[in-house]
Amino acid sequence: MINKLVANIKKTEAPIVVGLDPMLNYIPEHVQKKAFAEYGETLEGAAEAIWQFNKAIVDSTYDLIPAVKPQIAMYEQFGIPGMQAFKKTVDYCKEKGLVVIGDIKRGDIGSTSAAYAVGHLGKVAVGNNSFAPFDEDFATVNPYLGSDGVNPFLDVCKEEKKGIFVLVKTSNPSSGEFQDQKIDGRPLYELVGEKVAAWGEEAMGDDYSYVGAVVGATYPEMGKVLRKIMPKAYILVPGYGAQGGKGKDLVHFFNEDGLGAIVNSSRGIIAAYKQEKYANFGAENFADASRAAVEDMVADIKGALGK
Amino acid sequence: MINKLVANIKKTEAPIVVGLDPMLNYIPEHVQKKAFAEYGETLEGAAEAIWQFNKAIVDSTYDLIPAVKPQIAMYEQFGIPGMQAFKKTVDYCKEKGLVVIGDIKRGDIGSTSAAYAVGHLGKVAVGNNSFAPFDEDFATVNPYLGSDGVNPFLDVCKEEKKGIFVLVKTSNPSSGEFQDQKIDGRPLYELVGEKVAAWGEEAMGDDYSYVGAVVGATYPEMGKVLRKIMPKAYILVPGYGAQGGKGKDLVHFFNEDGLGAIVNSSRGIIAAYKQEKYANFGAENFADASRAAVEDMVADIKGALGK
Repeated sequence: MINKLVANIKKTEAPIVVGLDPMLNYIPEHVQKKAFAEYGETLEGAAEAIWQFNKAIVDSTYDLIPAVKPQIAMYEQFGIPGMQAFKKTVDYCKEKGLVVIGDIKRGDIGSTSAAYAVGHLGKVAVGNNSFAPFDEDFATVNPYLGSDGVNPFLDVCKEEKKGIFVLVKTSNPSSGEFQDQKIDGRPLYELVGEKVAAWGEEAMGDDYSYVGAVVGATYPEMGKVLRKIMPKAYILVPGYGAQGGKGKDLVHFFNEDGLGAIVNSSRGIIAAYKQEKYANFGAENFADASRAAVEDMVADIKGALGK
Repeated sequence: MINKLVANIKKTEAPIVVGLDPMLNYIPEHVQKKAFAEYGETLEGAAEAIWQFNKAIVDSTYDLIPAVKPQIAMYEQFGIPGMQAFKKTVDYCKEKGLVVIGDIKRGDIGSTSAAYAVGHLGKVAVGNNSFAPFDEDFATVNPYLGSDGVNPFLDVCKEEKKGIFVLVKTSNPSSGEFQDQKIDGRPLYELVGEKVAAWGEEAMGDDYSYVGAVVGATYPEMGKVLRKIMPKAYILVPGYGAQGGKGKDLVHFFNEDGLGAIVNSSRGIIAAYKQEKYANFGAENFADASRAAVEDMVADIKGALGK
């Protein structure tokens, strides 16, 4: 799947991923109204609004982008119907040829970690049958529990040729509370980065590993160091746009081959119609606004990379 | 809810929690067969088997125990039907008067963490309505992202009088890879413990805080130190039984009031019928074996505490 991700990025010339994190207040009123008319102001209604919103954005952008990253929390908050909308979104994006990164940030140990891994990336056995319950292409994983938490994911990744992105240095302001703490003079996130490189060595695609890393756009200097520590890891970069990261901050997340990083934007794309810059599209044409925002983001990043 | 947890523990005189982590191979064949006869060897069939297994164990033990801890991964791996079985289990345990600790180990930032918090502990708004989608009493939370990840849970906990257990020192062998790393001579888990104490100060129940901690039974010396660092935090202790922790290892996790810790056992209880010790019950009477295992576990811990 890392090979497909790289191929998709080369094809679209767009090292970006659209974060499908549909908060209800991002969804235009006419979409919500239609869903509520059918299902009421219920969890089912919310799930339908999310699904219709996602579908319109995917339909309007899929030819420009290599991948999407649905944030499962935004679906899980609507209970079972929300999880159904998550699943529907994953399936639809895959039909459209997109790589799907499940932003699930799971992390546990042993058989529990294995359960998450089969549930999201692999197949679960029931009697003589097996099923791929959520079937994303990649999942994000929290490293706090160490190798016991990551290895079960690796086993499934190797079997299914799928991948993970391990949280190394997150984009939020308080990420330093633990991640920046110095161990023998070096921050914890470097240690985690070294582990990512080691875990990744045993699961290589053609040029990059099945094991990637999450490093926030908001910390470009740290990104530069981590790029060197994990040369074969694809870096998933959140924090662009709404969280403050800009194209020029991203240069050092990439390798010299122009690859190695994929930059996420969520509300900057999916709620673009709410920005002054794209206001002329109007809420009715929110999906066209998202397309324009994708084009602008790609241009910004290409410009920064000198392409 | 921390007050209810303490009250339940005093009433039952059992500082334990039963981990409802129903792997299919723990579930007796007759239960699986019946579920598969009705729903086929499908995700629905697996979910039904899990639910019937859980229900029997809860019916057989609820009067002896204060709380249960369903591990969501074991349900999530069976997709949507699995999540429905999780929800059904949570609801049923609450009907029985048990405190429900959702072992979800979620952790994200800002609005995403808030989405997990409302989805699992609070209420989510849809139009003019609001819903409590999963509605556990407590949730476990991963601290790697710092305060930005924990505060949204705290906001919901204060509003709903619910609680969280933050991963501090986990029970697994590789937990030390990051958690034991020394920062100015002190391990990371102590730093996390200090944060737990600080987060907990602003959300106090009568004697204990809404903010608890997870510390593995397999590291009793660390538990002793952490007990002092977080005097008002309830400690959820995994790793008893199958993972190697014994009653005598647990003494220092408790405060002098005999409270302050709740010890989890999962497969040691729910799959007790598979142990030589309880083999005479037979698979047909698996729930009775679980009851006997609960009684033995309570006696072991009481003995260790000198009660």
